Amino acid sequence: MGLRLFPREETFFDLLNGSAQNIVRAARMLQDLLDDYTDVERKAEAIKSVEDKGDDITHTIIDRLNRTFITPFDREDIFTLAKQLDDVLDWIEASSARMAVYKIPHATSEVSELAHILVSECEAIVEAITNLRKLDRLAGPLREINRLENLADRVQRDAIAKLFSSNGNPIDVIKWKEIYETLEEATDQGEHVAHVLEGIYAKHK
Amino acid sequence: MGLRLFPREETFFDLLNGSAQNIVRAARMLQDLLDDYTDVERKAEAIKSVEDKGDDITHTIIDRLNRTFITPFDREDIFTLAKQLDDVLDWIEASSARMAVYKIPHATSEVSELAHILVSECEAIVEAITNLRKLDRLAGPLREINRLENLADRVQRDAIAKLFSSNGNPIDVIKWKEIYETLEEATDQGEHVAHVLEGIYAKHK
Amino acid sequence: MGLRLFPREETFFDLLNGSAQNIVRAARMLQDLLDDYTDVERKAEAIKSVEDKGDDITHTIIDRLNRTFITPFDREDIFTLAKQLDDVLDWIEASSARMAVYKIPHATSEVSELAHILVSECEAIVEAITNLRKLDRLAGPLREINRLENLADRVQRDAIAKLFSSNGNPIDVIKWKEIYETLEEATDQGEHVAHVLEGIYAKHK
Repeated sequence: MGLRLFPREETFFDLLNGSAQNIVRAARMLQDLLDDYTDVERKAEAIKSVEDKGDDITHTIIDRLNRTFITPFDREDIFTLAKQLDDVLDWIEASSARMAVYKIPHATSEVSELAHILVSECEAIVEAITNLRKLDRLAGPLREINRLENLADRVQRDAIAKLFSSNGNPIDVIKWKEIYETLEEATDQGEHVAHVLEGIYAKHK
Repeated sequence: MGLRLFPREETFFDLLNGSAQNIVRAARMLQDLLDDYTDVERKAEAIKSVEDKGDDITHTIIDRLNRTFITPFDREDIFTLAKQLDDVLDWIEASSARMAVYKIPHATSEVSELAHILVSECEAIVEAITNLRKLDRLAGPLREINRLENLADRVQRDAIAKLFSSNGNPIDVIKWKEIYETLEEATDQGEHVAHVLEGIYAKHK
Repeated sequence: MGLRLFPREETFFDLLNGSAQNIVRAARMLQDLLDDYTDVERKAEAIKSVEDKGDDITHTIIDRLNRTFITPFDREDIFTLAKQLDDVLDWIEASSARMAVYKIPHATSEVSELAHILVSECEAIVEAITNLRKLDRLAGPLREINRLENLADRVQRDAIAKLFSSNGNPIDVIKWKEIYETLEEATDQGEHVAHVLEGIYAKHK
């Protein structure tokens, strides 16, 4: 199965790859924001710029899709994949924005941990996208994405349980619960990328 | 590209259009409820009736779909579009119901603003659905839907940040957070309509 | 319409049926946990084991899908259905896990009621899956799933309104709101199964 299935119109792969690379970049910036919790507003704005760039990439893909007759795989699958990659980025950005907008004074070890998981997941997404042309190498990164999403789910669950037992100020509990959920949603959206890729795989196998 | 792509079976367009018109009606009733915050339970019940009518329209579409051999575009796209329009309406109704059920004593300028954005978004959805037959006129309303969803996201984000800094009663904070999120979810579902339309466009282009 | 549409490759039906049966089992265990609220951690762990078994079934389906040339209906529909069944189970497990992890000291009549609705919904899902081969018998269980989801929505809405008017500890309000929402999300995911089945029906009718 090592053969290349899709010789036609390579640029869609380049564009999808560019989108995935852009997401890793945002995830790393989020990780840095949470590991070194200083200058939060400026760092959150920088992540917003990366998200804007992501919007441009997504529009380029959809636009090219609308002007290309033959596509390397089903038109609607490229469309869904581009959109789903964009959703991951939206939730990464939402996580950093919430830290800034809610004026959270410090990070916790749990948000850092979630950001690290997110970076690993985004790296596995890049690997999966890179291997779209060699379908037999897709299984590894897909399994890794799944594992990381389960891990993030457990970290978030425990973080919220800890929050509840902390006897903290209820407003702070609400804020933090929202932030843990937003980070977990980002990893969840990453798993949706894996589902789209699995669906493409199922069709072409 | 000004030509009409879909001469066959016009009634699906009429039905989808009727569904979109019904959603605008509900959005305007929600806007009225929030702009003139009196008689809330009765107004919320009136919106519930519009939602029930929406369910009827959706079932009619699906039923007709199941009895029609040739459809103007892919059977599953009509199906997805009908369902997605219904989801917008569900969240509009959920917004009004929460104001009533949670016994919220007054509206805020932010919920009014969100309702106004929602009305504009639903009007753009009607325009997009109307132009399904002239695909080149779809781009304008789709862009507008996207812009309005981003705007709603920002308004909701700021409203929740303000809520957190208000030192209010925690239960009130929870209620209002939920209401802002429900309104924002309605605009989000509207954007999903745009995605479905973009997907149809991508296929037929 | 009593004829069997899909004579080929019966095992996909067996596997999908096995997945649905596994979900009913988890729903009944959740109902038991909430009706007889003792030994919560052990019962939640037992539900987790059923979820793990569900993961195995899902992977078997996808794996078989990838090794089978001719499938009884569209490859991506089997894929989507298997995934969507898995999502129902995930939310059932999440409901029981939250009771345990948040150290909830007792159940309420509303969580029991939601669990009973969920069991009925999962039984309707089994009936729908069983009748995938006789499409004309699908309408009944699909309508029932829809009815039960609406009922769950109303029970959850009223439960949260009651919670808000209870003057309880804000942290407890947050915990319970989350638990009601998680249970309602499980019924919502069940309705998504119905949507996938309706979509398959729309294609094959």
